[in-house]
Amino acid sequence: MNHRLEKLSGWLKHEGVELAMIQDPANLFYLTGFECEPHERLVALFSFPGEEPFMILPELEMDRLKNSGWTHGITAYGDSDNPWHIIRSLLADRKLLSFQRAAVELEHLTYARAQSLLSLSPEAKLVSVSTHLGAMRVIKDETEIRAARKAARFADMAVETGIAALKPGCTELEVVARIEYEMKRQGIREMSFSTMVLFGKKSGDPHGIPGTQPLQEGDLVLFDLGVIFDGYASDITRTVAFRSISEEASRIYETVRKAQEAALAQCRPKTPMMEVDRAARQVIAEAGYGAHFPHRIGHGLGISAHEYPSLHGKNSDHLSEGMIITVEPGIYVPEIGGVRIEDDLVITADGHQVLTRFPKELQIVK
Amino acid sequence: MNHRLEKLSGWLKHEGVELAMIQDPANLFYLTGFECEPHERLVALFSFPGEEPFMILPELEMDRLKNSGWTHGITAYGDSDNPWHIIRSLLADRKLLSFQRAAVELEHLTYARAQSLLSLSPEAKLVSVSTHLGAMRVIKDETEIRAARKAARFADMAVETGIAALKPGCTELEVVARIEYEMKRQGIREMSFSTMVLFGKKSGDPHGIPGTQPLQEGDLVLFDLGVIFDGYASDITRTVAFRSISEEASRIYETVRKAQEAALAQCRPKTPMMEVDRAARQVIAEAGYGAHFPHRIGHGLGISAHEYPSLHGKNSDHLSEGMIITVEPGIYVPEIGGVRIEDDLVITADGHQVLTRFPKELQIVK
Repeated sequence: MNHRLEKLSGWLKHEGVELAMIQDPANLFYLTGFECEPHERLVALFSFPGEEPFMILPELEMDRLKNSGWTHGITAYGDSDNPWHIIRSLLADRKLLSFQRAAVELEHLTYARAQSLLSLSPEAKLVSVSTHLGAMRVIKDETEIRAARKAARFADMAVETGIAALKPGCTELEVVARIEYEMKRQGIREMSFSTMVLFGKKSGDPHGIPGTQPLQEGDLVLFDLGVIFDGYASDITRTVAFRSISEEASRIYETVRKAQEAALAQCRPKTPMMEVDRAARQVIAEAGYGAHFPHRIGHGLGISAHEYPSLHGKNSDHLSEGMIITVEPGIYVPEIGGVRIEDDLVITADGHQVLTRFPKELQIVK
Repeated sequence: MNHRLEKLSGWLKHEGVELAMIQDPANLFYLTGFECEPHERLVALFSFPGEEPFMILPELEMDRLKNSGWTHGITAYGDSDNPWHIIRSLLADRKLLSFQRAAVELEHLTYARAQSLLSLSPEAKLVSVSTHLGAMRVIKDETEIRAARKAARFADMAVETGIAALKPGCTELEVVARIEYEMKRQGIREMSFSTMVLFGKKSGDPHGIPGTQPLQEGDLVLFDLGVIFDGYASDITRTVAFRSISEEASRIYETVRKAQEAALAQCRPKTPMMEVDRAARQVIAEAGYGAHFPHRIGHGLGISAHEYPSLHGKNSDHLSEGMIITVEPGIYVPEIGGVRIEDDLVITADGHQVLTRFPKELQIVK
């Protein structure tokens, strides 16, 4: 067993839990290195204290699992099989059918699958494995930080590509297309989420969706994007102005920039996460935009673009060395648009290191 | 209330269920027209028999919900709020806190959220709303068929773009990039799933992942892709040969083509779905490749790229007018590669109409 699987198995033993069922693709990748996109089909890893783990998955995926280096048990099922019948007999073989406690991903496992698992041992109690896996995943090792750093480098390049594609009349989707084309040409297989490019007032919607709106002089242009590199996500936001900028938009930009600096200055081990949020929020409130910063300051980043922890104003958990987080204050004013500046950073022994490097000075694209 | 929300409310009344909580983005879009990608944040529609529905969602999404035309109750929460406290008081206001039965998406709702909902009324029972919504969604109306038809047209164009991009030494990811670039330029915001372009032996993996493998003479090239148009997905597969084809690959191609024709010939109202699968499987088995067709013949298609029904060899449900399904037999031989041919079709009163139109004769790309 690899180190991570051993740690999981040890935790099960320590907690007196008889089995864990893992089926979030991000956790599967973390524990096994196997990448999958199972859609509605079940792909699950069963882990035990002091027993070999096994995986059950669709026949379609079996060769890829073998090629990924998995050396433990594999059971494949066909599209017309019921995988739960197979799981029942695999657990029966190991005399584990009357388990009392099973660890599952409570925030990911569906209620229907939980019922299927419980039907195997109706008296059992489901406990969370997510907190333990989250605590393992939140502290990144050197290999993970290396991947995140490369993912951040590609995110920088993607913003640069996007800015170079800005021409009067071009559409948001065309710029998205240029960015993703260049990334794929560079060998990037997937973006970490739907690439966001928003022009003008649309940038004022923190979850806006790119469309066919044409670029005009004076528009703010907001890029929020990331790539997956070696399984790890980056997530950058930069906002530029096209050809000119209004006085108020410029003031908003500088406020966000200062807010981000203030938040970054808090990023070191032992700082409560709420302090990072508070630092940015204070700068924004003092500038009179307090009501226009409707989201948290950031989130954890790793195999998933959004993962534990959530850096919001009521989270008193502390930052620790090895965490990778985003810091992304924003101000959104309906009549003007929005400005957000987001970096990825890794918490180091005595502070932090910013992974995304694209400049943050206000750029007026000519 | 729109027609679909009224139907849901009427069903709740008929079944004696006090509330439904809907949070699958596909179901939300179907019922309200509101598109969202909430990641880990809760966006939920609460529907009741004989009461106005309401939606709860992050502040970030509120303006977009309003702009989508939603005219019923909206409650927004911030990143540091607990939405379940808000839901508790909204239900208390309606004197609905001691509900006995709540309808939820058992296959989508997480166990953790189910526990949160049950904590509001610990004696309550959760029943499935998915079967009812699936039965509503499976029969498409004219507007939906029109969107699916356009999505299929773009899928045809995407395959054409991909074939035009094939050059000796080009990589799978470069071809994916060309396709997605062209689609975005055409105003397509998202593909229905990760675009698949596989060369040579890699085409032999039904769930293969595009990489930087260079194209060589004699390679099979498999395209599996789709787009979202007006909220509806297409899903096409075509396989071509690059410059030359071996005798066996050519025989495999013709077998898949005949298998697909045989399956299509079964597609009309009242046919049991297993018969569609059986028709293709028989052709493939007779040609000696029975062991090399490891997946079902197809699946439902609509707001999601994979939705109810699953057309596999043990499904005795009948096809009905208005269903949109895929028909996609394939043969995968490790030393040679794979061939799959997939169309989208709508079941009509007396047969079916194929929506994807790209030619299916063997193409040897020069």
